[in-house]
Amino acid sequence: MGYVLHNFFRSSTSFRVRATLNLKGLDYAYLPYALRKGEQRDSRHLALNPQGLVPTLETPQGPLAQSLAIIEWLEETNPEPPLLPSDPWARARVRSLAQAVALDIHPINNLRVLRYLSEVLGADEEAVAVWFRHWVSETFAPLEQRLSQEPETGQFCHGESPSLADICLAGQVLSNRRFSVSIADYPTIQRIFDACMALPAFEAAAPNNQPDAE
Amino acid sequence: MGYVLHNFFRSSTSFRVRATLNLKGLDYAYLPYALRKGEQRDSRHLALNPQGLVPTLETPQGPLAQSLAIIEWLEETNPEPPLLPSDPWARARVRSLAQAVALDIHPINNLRVLRYLSEVLGADEEAVAVWFRHWVSETFAPLEQRLSQEPETGQFCHGESPSLADICLAGQVLSNRRFSVSIADYPTIQRIFDACMALPAFEAAAPNNQPDAE
Repeated sequence: MGYVLHNFFRSSTSFRVRATLNLKGLDYAYLPYALRKGEQRDSRHLALNPQGLVPTLETPQGPLAQSLAIIEWLEETNPEPPLLPSDPWARARVRSLAQAVALDIHPINNLRVLRYLSEVLGADEEAVAVWFRHWVSETFAPLEQRLSQEPETGQFCHGESPSLADICLAGQVLSNRRFSVSIADYPTIQRIFDACMALPAFEAAAPNNQPDAE
Repeated sequence: MGYVLHNFFRSSTSFRVRATLNLKGLDYAYLPYALRKGEQRDSRHLALNPQGLVPTLETPQGPLAQSLAIIEWLEETNPEPPLLPSDPWARARVRSLAQAVALDIHPINNLRVLRYLSEVLGADEEAVAVWFRHWVSETFAPLEQRLSQEPETGQFCHGESPSLADICLAGQVLSNRRFSVSIADYPTIQRIFDACMALPAFEAAAPNNQPDAE
């Protein structure tokens, strides 16, 4: 048995796992869930992942939830090509950059949170878009500063090959498009994003190239 | 030079790093920031961490931001006692449990987000408390299910010694107190939390035991 990815084309956490599987040359079956219809909470998926969130990766050892845990596990079990450097301090930098996106932007701007804003707190469409853009810029501004100033930055976030940080960053930039977030103010992020999307592994993971794309 | 922790007594991400340093027997200097006064955005701290968020750990190699990146780095550079199992699949389980708390609860319930709810969206005190409790229960319910049913659970989240998952879980339970979240519905979480707080390393990391505690 191989890998089965339970996911959604537009989910940036799903993108991260797709890009990782692609970079490592691992085949997987694609199972889409229409998040707006709540399909991720059907009993079949809840049996694999009681949180009822995508992505969930079915593996030969069992189901695994949480995109960053999935990626670290894939990295440990399929080390080539590496998505983390070997030096601990360099690994820490990559994880720190990745987590700025994965913890300080994505969870706050996730679909279930945006829905709560409109359905429970009565926020209108514009207020939801302002919220989304606020949390992107709160992190993208300092991230641009770090990436443009720190000597470890190369063609990618860390040196000359894509890492966990690029995977998280590219997923966020793709997600930003739904709310027309301009990244003109972030030239280093733009440059790194372009380098990522020039790689077939990233391009094949993009939302528009998935079977459930609208 | 040793470690300097830039942090805030009540921050659950700060708690995670304090507990990790304590568990590994590492001394550190404690630098408090009054988050409500915005001290974490002073120029001295921004020079170390452009995101202006706590915790930041100053290390002999430089400053490091993001609590989970800090903990993974401390784990790699000070492996004893281990906070992650050695087996990759077991490591994945621990990271997955930790990230359910660290990604799906904490970022959404962070002070800066709660402030946005009240200051920008006009949510009143009760609506903010309902928000906080909603995101806790959305994750604690499936987490209780996993911890109570999965055979790997022991005295702690994974077996008989504290791990990254316990550190994140205990920090969240402590944080819940501000909004009077009852964990009576989560007996396994309660049991594990009690086991954690019986350890001097966790107890010494608790908000009430910090020099800036109110």
